[in-house]
Amino acid sequence: MRSGMIRVVQQSLLGSILSNMLLVLGCAFFSGGIVHSNKEQVFNKSNAVMNSGLLLMAVMGLLFPAVLHSTHTELHFGKSELALSRFSSCIMLVAYAAYLFFQLKSEKNLYAPINEEGIQTDGSLDDDEAPEVSKWESIIWLFVLTAWISFLSEYLVNAIEGASVTLNIPIAFISVILLPIVGNAAEHAGAIMFAIKDKLDISLGVAIGSSTQISMFGIPFCVIVGWVWGHPMDLNFQIFETATLFMTVLVVAFMLQEGTSNYFKGLMLLFCYMIVAASFFVHIDPKSIQDKPGKT
Amino acid sequence: MRSGMIRVVQQSLLGSILSNMLLVLGCAFFSGGIVHSNKEQVFNKSNAVMNSGLLLMAVMGLLFPAVLHSTHTELHFGKSELALSRFSSCIMLVAYAAYLFFQLKSEKNLYAPINEEGIQTDGSLDDDEAPEVSKWESIIWLFVLTAWISFLSEYLVNAIEGASVTLNIPIAFISVILLPIVGNAAEHAGAIMFAIKDKLDISLGVAIGSSTQISMFGIPFCVIVGWVWGHPMDLNFQIFETATLFMTVLVVAFMLQEGTSNYFKGLMLLFCYMIVAASFFVHIDPKSIQDKPGKT
Amino acid sequence: MRSGMIRVVQQSLLGSILSNMLLVLGCAFFSGGIVHSNKEQVFNKSNAVMNSGLLLMAVMGLLFPAVLHSTHTELHFGKSELALSRFSSCIMLVAYAAYLFFQLKSEKNLYAPINEEGIQTDGSLDDDEAPEVSKWESIIWLFVLTAWISFLSEYLVNAIEGASVTLNIPIAFISVILLPIVGNAAEHAGAIMFAIKDKLDISLGVAIGSSTQISMFGIPFCVIVGWVWGHPMDLNFQIFETATLFMTVLVVAFMLQEGTSNYFKGLMLLFCYMIVAASFFVHIDPKSIQDKPGKT
Repeated sequence: MRSGMIRVVQQSLLGSILSNMLLVLGCAFFSGGIVHSNKEQVFNKSNAVMNSGLLLMAVMGLLFPAVLHSTHTELHFGKSELALSRFSSCIMLVAYAAYLFFQLKSEKNLYAPINEEGIQTDGSLDDDEAPEVSKWESIIWLFVLTAWISFLSEYLVNAIEGASVTLNIPIAFISVILLPIVGNAAEHAGAIMFAIKDKLDISLGVAIGSSTQISMFGIPFCVIVGWVWGHPMDLNFQIFETATLFMTVLVVAFMLQEGTSNYFKGLMLLFCYMIVAASFFVHIDPKSIQDKPGKT
Repeated sequence: MRSGMIRVVQQSLLGSILSNMLLVLGCAFFSGGIVHSNKEQVFNKSNAVMNSGLLLMAVMGLLFPAVLHSTHTELHFGKSELALSRFSSCIMLVAYAAYLFFQLKSEKNLYAPINEEGIQTDGSLDDDEAPEVSKWESIIWLFVLTAWISFLSEYLVNAIEGASVTLNIPIAFISVILLPIVGNAAEHAGAIMFAIKDKLDISLGVAIGSSTQISMFGIPFCVIVGWVWGHPMDLNFQIFETATLFMTVLVVAFMLQEGTSNYFKGLMLLFCYMIVAASFFVHIDPKSIQDKPGKT
Repeated sequence: MRSGMIRVVQQSLLGSILSNMLLVLGCAFFSGGIVHSNKEQVFNKSNAVMNSGLLLMAVMGLLFPAVLHSTHTELHFGKSELALSRFSSCIMLVAYAAYLFFQLKSEKNLYAPINEEGIQTDGSLDDDEAPEVSKWESIIWLFVLTAWISFLSEYLVNAIEGASVTLNIPIAFISVILLPIVGNAAEHAGAIMFAIKDKLDISLGVAIGSSTQISMFGIPFCVIVGWVWGHPMDLNFQIFETATLFMTVLVVAFMLQEGTSNYFKGLMLLFCYMIVAASFFVHIDPKSIQDKPGKT
């Protein structure tokens, strides 16, 4: 497994988070706001704050290895950040498991955050069985999604490099922006549909729930899988990528803190996504990362 | 047009945002809080959150070029950040136009955020005409203000350099701190007056509205004007300036999120401004920026 | 006084803030949430927001010298950041004094944020005298605590270096993580006890109040004391330490903004503390800081 491939996995996971938080949520807010322009759409604020908190925790997990690396204050240069990443990944997986458990237990389970099919869970089903089933379904779905992302990335890495040369587009732009737009098409359609039906909590569950899931489950899971297989994937996504994620999480957290949405908030998220996309269009990995033969 | 002049334009725009957000708003909160010390003053929270969101988006627009440049991960060193800045500026102008449109359309137009003369708009005028007129007035006012800033900067750049040598004060301090204090005197007086009259929404409109306007209209407008005239002005304000703006926006966003103010919040903003001012007093541009003959 | 000793003082102060905000508050939220799992615990939101604001201001005071230093944009390399730190420290002390005055004056003094023994202040005592006494007590307590920290640090610096060599643990980990856990044991026990008794405001007063006090009083006080004694202690805690504090303050501010707590929020803070601790375990000061003989 080449070093370049680890970067593609990292970048497509990052891109998936960015696209869910800005593009999918932005489109949902915008289309919902246009259809229901006579009123403010509301959603479950406390759930949104909890998700913002998890996303900030994920940013913390990614930020420290990147800062340690870029300030050259690691104990053993290059190796310490890998050990730290693996430890942090375990913590993040446990935190995500605790989050699922917490949602399972909390009676006022207003929406099933990861289950797109669970529309009926907000009332019409038996309260005792239905949510648990949807939880297990969703856990399985997590594994399937992650496996799919891993597989896709493995398969696509050569295609991406070819396309990058042919179309003269940086690899970063293809893996961070183009891939996730295609990959998130289903979630995208779902989130918009539910927003138009004024079921904004489900839209949020799809968009922000997916982001939380990828950042607190997908990324650490890939690090652990890489550990088992002997690949040096770590949480150091480099400073620029981490800064992008950080700003995105902050903007979205501020947009969500009120518990209301309108079409302008949606538009702002879309404009932010354009700025993010443009930034990745002029971004390349520094030579030191591209050329090195593998970090082990 | 020398490179030093672009820096003065950048820094006086930045200083104007900082002074509006910390000094003007701080004075307004403080004087309002002292006069009305028996109660908590309230303001329109959702409008404040919207403005915080726009300011965070502006920080995003400034942060990415600065991070790209300082991590040396641009596609074409020096040129890519200019292209990105011009693209982001267009996005920011469109976003600001959308914001004005959104405010125009929203019926519950509790205050006219950019129009200092529009005191009566909160009730006593005809609802159908008055706000639109004040909007158009304010749009014209935007152009006048921006032209004035541009003109002032062009005229003053030599004076600043002379003063800097004579008084032994860094250029950064003059353009970021001293110039905007003079330039914002009118807004300053207005914001304090309205806060004392317990019309905090108008104070906020003046202070935060001006900051939003400069960051989402003034700065991108200058970039576009520079593009038309062939000057390489970009959104890369350097890491330190961007970090200052980022922290300021965060502090103000946290102060505004509750929708209430008191004199201590005002004091805190003033203290923050003193720390910011002191930081710029010991800040100089690195040699590489000062000496280069122009970035084209 | 060796340069290494200043670092130990800086790091143990930083560690004390981190441990209060994440470990102590996390344990309080968690144990309170487990015992009162049938309901959401609430606390005084506006007080929490005020403390978040003060903490963000402290981050601002620490961030600017660190960024100035690391971007090499100081006026006089090495000296300017010391002057800035001393100025900022004075501002922070005045701001903290203003905060105490504000709390003293505000009638709805729901809790005495620094006084752990002041349980009765929330109603049962005479309103006119009791809070003032507890304030003066607390101010004395501030001095005692700071003196104790200074003394402890002076005494322990050799012990730490010895332990670091013997146990093969980085000095940073001992001073940032291990020392404060022992040092905060009393606050820790108090915060958990009050959370279990559903007096979450007192828990917050202990945990967040202590953090505010150390960051806005302890740290600047040490800088001023160092100034008087001729030691070059400044607010430049280096980029990694400042980034850690910044992320921690952000995460805690987002957790507090709703004014409610549950066991999952407590767990998240604990997990964040583990990630922070692990990061400091692989962190060493760069050679340039460790070896230099003193910054004067």
